[in-house]
Amino acid sequence: MSPIALPSHNVAVLYGAKDLRVEERSVWPPSANQAQVAIVSTGLCGSDLHYYMHGRNGDFALQAPLVLGHEAAGIVTAVGPGVKNLVPGQRVAIEAGIMCRNCDYCKKGRYNLCKSMRFCSSAAVFPHADGTLQGRMNHPAHVLHPLPDHCSFEQAALAEPLSVLIHASRRANLTAGQTVLVYGVGAIGLLACSVAKSLGAARVVAIDINQTRLDFARKNGFASQTFCLPPADKAKTTDDQLRRAKENAQIALAEFGAPAGFDVVFECTGAEPVIQMSVHTAISGGKVMLIGMGTRNVMLPLSSAALREVDIHGSFRYANTYPAALQLLSSGKLKNVEKLITHRFPLKDIKRAFDLLTRGQDEDGNMVLKVMIESS
Amino acid sequence: MSPIALPSHNVAVLYGAKDLRVEERSVWPPSANQAQVAIVSTGLCGSDLHYYMHGRNGDFALQAPLVLGHEAAGIVTAVGPGVKNLVPGQRVAIEAGIMCRNCDYCKKGRYNLCKSMRFCSSAAVFPHADGTLQGRMNHPAHVLHPLPDHCSFEQAALAEPLSVLIHASRRANLTAGQTVLVYGVGAIGLLACSVAKSLGAARVVAIDINQTRLDFARKNGFASQTFCLPPADKAKTTDDQLRRAKENAQIALAEFGAPAGFDVVFECTGAEPVIQMSVHTAISGGKVMLIGMGTRNVMLPLSSAALREVDIHGSFRYANTYPAALQLLSSGKLKNVEKLITHRFPLKDIKRAFDLLTRGQDEDGNMVLKVMIESS
Amino acid sequence: MSPIALPSHNVAVLYGAKDLRVEERSVWPPSANQAQVAIVSTGLCGSDLHYYMHGRNGDFALQAPLVLGHEAAGIVTAVGPGVKNLVPGQRVAIEAGIMCRNCDYCKKGRYNLCKSMRFCSSAAVFPHADGTLQGRMNHPAHVLHPLPDHCSFEQAALAEPLSVLIHASRRANLTAGQTVLVYGVGAIGLLACSVAKSLGAARVVAIDINQTRLDFARKNGFASQTFCLPPADKAKTTDDQLRRAKENAQIALAEFGAPAGFDVVFECTGAEPVIQMSVHTAISGGKVMLIGMGTRNVMLPLSSAALREVDIHGSFRYANTYPAALQLLSSGKLKNVEKLITHRFPLKDIKRAFDLLTRGQDEDGNMVLKVMIESS
Amino acid sequence: MSPIALPSHNVAVLYGAKDLRVEERSVWPPSANQAQVAIVSTGLCGSDLHYYMHGRNGDFALQAPLVLGHEAAGIVTAVGPGVKNLVPGQRVAIEAGIMCRNCDYCKKGRYNLCKSMRFCSSAAVFPHADGTLQGRMNHPAHVLHPLPDHCSFEQAALAEPLSVLIHASRRANLTAGQTVLVYGVGAIGLLACSVAKSLGAARVVAIDINQTRLDFARKNGFASQTFCLPPADKAKTTDDQLRRAKENAQIALAEFGAPAGFDVVFECTGAEPVIQMSVHTAISGGKVMLIGMGTRNVMLPLSSAALREVDIHGSFRYANTYPAALQLLSSGKLKNVEKLITHRFPLKDIKRAFDLLTRGQDEDGNMVLKVMIESS
Repeated sequence: MSPIALPSHNVAVLYGAKDLRVEERSVWPPSANQAQVAIVSTGLCGSDLHYYMHGRNGDFALQAPLVLGHEAAGIVTAVGPGVKNLVPGQRVAIEAGIMCRNCDYCKKGRYNLCKSMRFCSSAAVFPHADGTLQGRMNHPAHVLHPLPDHCSFEQAALAEPLSVLIHASRRANLTAGQTVLVYGVGAIGLLACSVAKSLGAARVVAIDINQTRLDFARKNGFASQTFCLPPADKAKTTDDQLRRAKENAQIALAEFGAPAGFDVVFECTGAEPVIQMSVHTAISGGKVMLIGMGTRNVMLPLSSAALREVDIHGSFRYANTYPAALQLLSSGKLKNVEKLITHRFPLKDIKRAFDLLTRGQDEDGNMVLKVMIESS
Repeated sequence: MSPIALPSHNVAVLYGAKDLRVEERSVWPPSANQAQVAIVSTGLCGSDLHYYMHGRNGDFALQAPLVLGHEAAGIVTAVGPGVKNLVPGQRVAIEAGIMCRNCDYCKKGRYNLCKSMRFCSSAAVFPHADGTLQGRMNHPAHVLHPLPDHCSFEQAALAEPLSVLIHASRRANLTAGQTVLVYGVGAIGLLACSVAKSLGAARVVAIDINQTRLDFARKNGFASQTFCLPPADKAKTTDDQLRRAKENAQIALAEFGAPAGFDVVFECTGAEPVIQMSVHTAISGGKVMLIGMGTRNVMLPLSSAALREVDIHGSFRYANTYPAALQLLSSGKLKNVEKLITHRFPLKDIKRAFDLLTRGQDEDGNMVLKVMIESS
Repeated sequence: MSPIALPSHNVAVLYGAKDLRVEERSVWPPSANQAQVAIVSTGLCGSDLHYYMHGRNGDFALQAPLVLGHEAAGIVTAVGPGVKNLVPGQRVAIEAGIMCRNCDYCKKGRYNLCKSMRFCSSAAVFPHADGTLQGRMNHPAHVLHPLPDHCSFEQAALAEPLSVLIHASRRANLTAGQTVLVYGVGAIGLLACSVAKSLGAARVVAIDINQTRLDFARKNGFASQTFCLPPADKAKTTDDQLRRAKENAQIALAEFGAPAGFDVVFECTGAEPVIQMSVHTAISGGKVMLIGMGTRNVMLPLSSAALREVDIHGSFRYANTYPAALQLLSSGKLKNVEKLITHRFPLKDIKRAFDLLTRGQDEDGNMVLKVMIESS
Repeated sequence: MSPIALPSHNVAVLYGAKDLRVEERSVWPPSANQAQVAIVSTGLCGSDLHYYMHGRNGDFALQAPLVLGHEAAGIVTAVGPGVKNLVPGQRVAIEAGIMCRNCDYCKKGRYNLCKSMRFCSSAAVFPHADGTLQGRMNHPAHVLHPLPDHCSFEQAALAEPLSVLIHASRRANLTAGQTVLVYGVGAIGLLACSVAKSLGAARVVAIDINQTRLDFARKNGFASQTFCLPPADKAKTTDDQLRRAKENAQIALAEFGAPAGFDVVFECTGAEPVIQMSVHTAISGGKVMLIGMGTRNVMLPLSSAALREVDIHGSFRYANTYPAALQLLSSGKLKNVEKLITHRFPLKDIKRAFDLLTRGQDEDGNMVLKVMIESS
């Protein structure tokens, strides 16, 4: 028996596809410039689900057991040497990506493009960096963000997906008075609506294939108008699909009474036909923001974009968004944002949480948007 | 016989594919806010060639006889009522597009996107607006730009294609110290190189399938380094082509010693495999500028662009570029730009000029870049 | 007696300081590209008051009788030849400045800087251009803006001062999440607060010397916090004044709990000591927007601005703001904006209106903010 | 006697005004993430001279002995633990400011505004951080920049003042085709000319009170045209000075044939009358960049700036400029930039160097621009 016993905590460790085990691990003290955080809330995300289901996310396969979770907030329990901006007891949001701070991208404020980024819960680098689905975590102090008063832990966990949309909005130069169309109103699309409104968008409308989601978006004030595009049979040829995308775009624009198109289009589905529609529903001189990239290669109506100067922008994670996200969440401006959290589980029931997420609907037939895990 | 005979001038009128006739027409006096210009030089452009060859350019077919030509300069011979900024005898470049000045695009300075634009020499609107392949032309004074001293008529005719690249560079936020890759070194690609250098680009390199063109580019200082990509057999499948584009991109980057890619990529070929390469040869956070849109729909490696925040921008004509273009041309900063003009013809030989352009090479085996027509 | 009698309307004509006469004039039909508007509402502005009081506004003195008024809306009663975007019966806001549409400023979308601008109600150009304090007015169609539904004529008249702030906010790159300090909460300062909120400002606070105004601002939700800076004796020396401005700035920042300063400071008083405070209350890297320029030369703590990269920006009128202003006014997002209109008079009582504006307070002791004149 | 003798090096230590002593100090090994650099060249700067002359620079007085020098380059001699991007033998430029990398300014890429910046050779923080006027120096690896081939140590030392101008140009959005006026053609003003040219400025002209400097600027291609403004008697009143500044501005603009003013004005003198002239010589919508802030409070013709939307921007040091500066210096694009280095001294003669700098002219009557110190 060790003379000085370290305390222990529970950790949800993914060993492979669907092989998720809750284990007990020792709690180590924080190193220099790190703080130790008792995790309170972690939101589950689509990439977590991919790892859980397939043991991989796109190109990145597990090479060792990995702790998932990167939308999280908690309480500082200890600080390592050199930490000045935090004290034990402080409530913080955890920015999961640890950038190198040495490369040009980091120095110029675009650290989301840092090639040496270690993103907790991702298998993109090896050794992997563990995520937040655990009781305690040591994390660099410079990526821990104090919570404003009136910001709950669950809201703070939403700061991560919200950051994705704040970053995308900045890249789109989204400004007051613009019109915005959002494709796909899952959690990310709903946050896109919310952010657009908070930026003073003149009009925010949404398209989805799921009427229930659209009803949710409209009833809760996320979108002022919605359009349900029924899922169609797969097109026989590429040309058929392109023609259909263009026709659907025209139908949608007519429905919205916006024949010239929208200033900014947020594509949050990643589906090829929807990306095609995005181009046709953007106004000349407007922007298509690709948020949900699920398709590696896409047949794009590129001349329609190029000749009308519709810019096509991707958006990868976020940089310098946490303070703004937390401020926004605590301000009460994101009306009904807490309704995104539809289900909650304690850490020990993590497998049940993932299974629910897989199904997309609970036993009472309720839609699953954001599932929150309570570590402590 | 009319008591007051109007003077006459020669006009090259296109009646249909390859049916180009030089006719005599009366010269009418300029209307209010117009000036009359004796055209001196007109450069021929790819779109002129399309009309000549096929009687159409993309979606736009001749619906009536049309005068081609839109890269032109001349001498003011008369001014209509209300014209204050011009006097007869003044040398001017002719901006061929007449914007409405009423719509939001016009008011905001993006008049190239004006839906009511009447562009001389284009069949996009009906009645068509005649171009500059004639002796005299009445044109709104607000789109006539006085030439600086030391700017020849031929240089001023180059202000049009140069404007395309100035506009594209502005849209790309091309700034000093950046690295630039140009695909396709015909007249437009060479001007892309020139503009990039004039903006202080740290490095300008070029790729083409034609070694002769690349030699020209390197010997005349347009590009500091070039890479010849031999034209390949058509790929059997879309996937083959995408894979090959990625491989070629990696080979080219290795060749240039720029494994991370280039800050700005100017795509001036319009060919699908090259557009695919463009994405892979742009640096993370960089930009692909689509200049030569010859392909309506393109299979794009979109996730590679989106996840690396490589922006894909089209660029349509230009707005507010003529003064800058003329200043640049007269400054002597565009080294060897006059070498772009490889052949000259009088207006009466216009058919010979188009035939040469069609062949792309003269009888002595010399490359054809820009062909200049002298109206007077 | 003329065989075709023209209809007549009432016009308020300023002949000199305080010599304002309501006269009957004939109504002429609109010329080409003009529409005739029956003016409904005109807001009075500080510059109108200057002309009324002194027969001049800064450098610009009356050289002939002048009709004041430039914050106006009305109904189209006739259109001249060439007008396509308007029909009689249409409700419009009148953008008072008629730009030349030929110069570089106009072409680039900065038409507020057009040197040939003819601004209705201003004596800056001769012959003067008459303003909107009349029954009918012929005005170029391209500066008449259709009202959205749910936008009243009085709201539309507010589109003019609102435009000043929209323009200033754009120049300040004011974005969501920023903190904003407004000096002076008269009509312009209150609109500055409103615009900042509509753009998603995280926090909007105000400073004034008048507690009543500040109470109005806070109670009606324009500012979340206010600070009353009592007017002081004139400083004996320049150095005293500079030191006092710095001290007052520190007191105010402490009061607001914002020791680092505000991201954007709107200076709406034009008073030298306040401009000095503005610099000290802007955060490093922030911006001071000068809205109310009443002082020609100002002793500025310039090194404090320069070494902290606090940018000092003026803002002159507006360009391309009317559609956004009208949209914003009709959206209901500018909470309590209609409360800015504190008094109303028919055109025939225009002198009483100016006298009230001069006093700044009505007989019941109520504050005067915006006075609206009803022409019909 | 120590069993392990540390090597030693020479250090120029300032103990107070004009009390500069060359001492021998031990060389300590580099700490984690630091490299040790053998300093080769250090340029002397105006702020070094202030410390030498007065024992202080503006608000910042020596509180302990201080090593001056911050424009430097050298050779890496050793690296501490954790350093990956550097190896002994590598040639590097030393970025003298060590930012905290934790604050918002650092994360957003504006680290020049970091409140915790430790700038080597400055007394602004205590304990002071020693500068480069010594033989060896341990410095964080992330602010050491490898030299390109063809970049000498002396050129690399110029990367510091050049950075000041690159940063200022970025803040001014200086782009190709613009016209630029530079006030004051000492080393900084000459570099302003050089940078403007490298960015494609259409025209660069200069004003100074010293004809010899202007001749140097014109003969060496820094400015295309110059104007000598003879130093005048001190104005009797503020109004006199303001009127004279306006008149001088008009004379200068007439002389340059640029009555509308210049797009960007670089003020590199810090003198009040010149700052006043700067406003009047900027074009409407243009920018005044304040580079040389020597005057704390300045009487500014502020309404002339504000009503013409002339932005007044300070510029403090630089951020993310070293790679661009080094690239530019090695490219050969900064014509005659090496002529800025007029005098050279070994470290042991540092006092003689400062004395020469104080006089501004050598014994042969030659102008002193940049003095270079060779440490080894």
